[in-house]
Amino acid sequence: MSESSSSNTSSAERLVHVPLGERAYDILIGDGLLARAGGEISSRIKGRKAAIITDEHVGPLYLEALMDSLEVDGIEAVSLTLPAGEKTKSFDHLTKVCDVLLEARIERNDTVIALGGGVIGDLTGFAAGIVRRGVRFVQIPTSLLSQVDSSVGGKTGINARQGKNLVGIFNQPDLVLADTSVLNTLSEREFRAGYAEVAKYGLIDKPEFFEWLERNWRAVFAGGAARTEAIALSCQAKADVVVVDERENGRRALLNLGHTFGHALEAATQYDSSRLVHGEGVAIGMVLAHEFSARLNLASPDDAKRVEKHLKEVGLPTSMSEIPGELPPADVLMQAIAQDKKVKSGQLTFILTHGIGQSFVADDVPSSEVLSFLREKLTQ
Amino acid sequence: MSESSSSNTSSAERLVHVPLGERAYDILIGDGLLARAGGEISSRIKGRKAAIITDEHVGPLYLEALMDSLEVDGIEAVSLTLPAGEKTKSFDHLTKVCDVLLEARIERNDTVIALGGGVIGDLTGFAAGIVRRGVRFVQIPTSLLSQVDSSVGGKTGINARQGKNLVGIFNQPDLVLADTSVLNTLSEREFRAGYAEVAKYGLIDKPEFFEWLERNWRAVFAGGAARTEAIALSCQAKADVVVVDERENGRRALLNLGHTFGHALEAATQYDSSRLVHGEGVAIGMVLAHEFSARLNLASPDDAKRVEKHLKEVGLPTSMSEIPGELPPADVLMQAIAQDKKVKSGQLTFILTHGIGQSFVADDVPSSEVLSFLREKLTQ
Ligand SMILES: NC(=O)c1ccc[n+]([C@@H]2O[C@H](COP(=O)([O-])OP(=O)(O)OC[C@H]3O[C@@H](n4cnc5c(N)ncnc54)[C@H](O)[C@@H]3O)[C@@H](O)[C@H]2O)c1
Ligand SMILES: NC(=O)c1ccc[n+]([C@@H]2O[C@H](COP(=O)([O-])OP(=O)(O)OC[C@H]3O[C@@H](n4cnc5c(N)ncnc54)[C@H](O)[C@@H]3O)[C@@H](O)[C@H]2O)c1
Ligand SMILES: [Zn+2]
Ligand SMILES: [Zn+2]
Repeated sequence: MSESSSSNTSSAERLVHVPLGERAYDILIGDGLLARAGGEISSRIKGRKAAIITDEHVGPLYLEALMDSLEVDGIEAVSLTLPAGEKTKSFDHLTKVCDVLLEARIERNDTVIALGGGVIGDLTGFAAGIVRRGVRFVQIPTSLLSQVDSSVGGKTGINARQGKNLVGIFNQPDLVLADTSVLNTLSEREFRAGYAEVAKYGLIDKPEFFEWLERNWRAVFAGGAARTEAIALSCQAKADVVVVDERENGRRALLNLGHTFGHALEAATQYDSSRLVHGEGVAIGMVLAHEFSARLNLASPDDAKRVEKHLKEVGLPTSMSEIPGELPPADVLMQAIAQDKKVKSGQLTFILTHGIGQSFVADDVPSSEVLSFLREKLTQ
Repeated sequence: MSESSSSNTSSAERLVHVPLGERAYDILIGDGLLARAGGEISSRIKGRKAAIITDEHVGPLYLEALMDSLEVDGIEAVSLTLPAGEKTKSFDHLTKVCDVLLEARIERNDTVIALGGGVIGDLTGFAAGIVRRGVRFVQIPTSLLSQVDSSVGGKTGINARQGKNLVGIFNQPDLVLADTSVLNTLSEREFRAGYAEVAKYGLIDKPEFFEWLERNWRAVFAGGAARTEAIALSCQAKADVVVVDERENGRRALLNLGHTFGHALEAATQYDSSRLVHGEGVAIGMVLAHEFSARLNLASPDDAKRVEKHLKEVGLPTSMSEIPGELPPADVLMQAIAQDKKVKSGQLTFILTHGIGQSFVADDVPSSEVLSFLREKLTQ
């Protein structure tokens, strides 16, 4: 990865191919892709019908432009605008989306388009995979988090009262269009939250990328070439992992760095986005994972400090004490961790690290250690 | 296939292997398998937890025996008993099943068991495929229809208000245990309905099997060796088709012989089993498919008569006039056909035939021909 200037001019478009055999697909990253969606879709998918699922924040901003682009290429589209926020990933909304797709007579070769952040992408991808046992599916991610993470890799699903993402399927999209300019209307807070996932790829196994981010994050926030490059590198990093482990039996678990703690915190704050959004939970979770690794003498405490410093600098929360409102006691957080889906036959699986860019899967973490670590952290 | 005496003694067990690569599985067919379920499951699946989904007819008869067998082999099980009938294949019940599986903390290597007919199998297989993006799944089909058809091949799903089976996934089971003796408590009517699917395999591409059935159906109904043989041959026939076309892009569509008309009739009777059950719809549908083929000069009218004669002999309905109550007019039936999932880009796909055991996929059937055929049949 080369150093990038913080110029605001739009960079050349990037393409990341995800080579998954008959489920292979392209991710296009760049400026102005929304306006070209019709052409990109119609050159890849036969059907002349589409249904767009979006949310009440994104719809008013981008739905019309997308509909126009589809119309130009002869694709007839209906749309459904859902409430924004994590609570939309529910059985009720899944039922509603399926109903709309069936009413619109979307068939096997027609397209379902997710226009929105990870919430819309996860819900829509699930619905597209179960209506008629699977119709075509295009992701147009509009949040940074969804561009670098949730739209790639095929995990789709909804939440259950027992926890996040507990119901869903693997459903690879047929195409991902990441228009970097739509991120300009994203709130600062949401952009930062997505940035936590960008930093994650560095922390997993790309120390030089993490270093690059430490120096260039302002350019990524500003837009232009650095942003496109950071998103493309993130998509490539995720695609590389997904290709060797599509169904998360091994290596893919590394992508959950920071997520075991993060998910527990999201559950503990009732998925209330005014208190904590996903990427913020991941930011805190990544710091905790590095600190916990240091406590187990696996990594240097300096690495944890370096992670904390960088995430703080970009404006992300890095400790549980920054979450507004009361948190439940450590044993309740532990329960949420145990119900999390990365539990195998009752044993705790954690992503730990030997240092920046040296994470690994540990599947024998004593829950007593986690509990006392959390107790300590909660009283700091 | 050899001639079989109509003796009632239990025959040797049969095994049909479904070679689908990493999704390969065994179907065991025979007497007394329920009592051996624990051993068969624990020799194939690691997890020590199971959840059994059954219905209010089957549960009281067989749940205890199954739980006992699991307990002997150290598998801890919970159960959920749902209402019997087609209406159970709904989003509401799917939500309920998922909730129960998550509450029971069923994990990836634990087992979800469908103990019941096709309704329980389709619903449970769908839930098992989406909870945690897939846990282990065992079919213990208890109706003849589910033993010879729905438990094999991996199609799972629920109904929508727009039609049957419109929402679901492909989810191959890890094991199918078809205990032929549990069919003794099935009502005559349900046994006959399942028999329609047995006859279907002959009509698709096994004329000698159809002939064998014409001679031996009484023995199949009585139980023993002929029943086991008919079920095993049916499972083998279905497995053969599924293996070459797991996701129904071509040849697998042949399994829908009689089903396009059948599904329309089920929809037209609001899935009210007092008027029509699935296999009865299929029986009528198969006769209609042969008659329609004759009308298009594709097959001899004598073949249609022969199909009608045999199905009548076993006690199945063979014409729409035998369905109690009013049927909607032909154009409403056509609408149901058009919304059926075997529609490709607006064109009608039908399974037609050149005669007994010579069916084929026709994807250019003029809907006007179907409509006038239905008009004629409805006024007979
Ligand atoms: N499938 C996966 O592999 C995967 C990976 C990571 C996260 N996720 C899921 O993703 C979800 C979080 O995604 P998210 O952070 O995108 O949440 P989100 O979809 O709720 O989007 C965040 C907020 O930003 C708004 N928004 C999105 N794009 C905008 C734009 N261009 N302009 C203005 N506002 C915009 C949304 O309306 C919403 O209010 C979680 O449900 C998480 O579980 C899934
Ligand atoms: N997945 C597939 O490939 C596939 C194929 C064909 C049919 N199906 C589906 O299967 C369903 C029909 O299956 P079905 O005919 O088994 O219906 P069903 O599950 O409703 O069973 C029929 C009736 O028999 C009862 N029953 C079942 N086993 C019994 C036993 N041993 N003793 C006493 N009563 C018993 C049930 O409680 C029910 O009342 C439909 O929903 C259809 O769509 C699916
Ligand atoms: Zn994440
Ligand atoms: Zn059938």
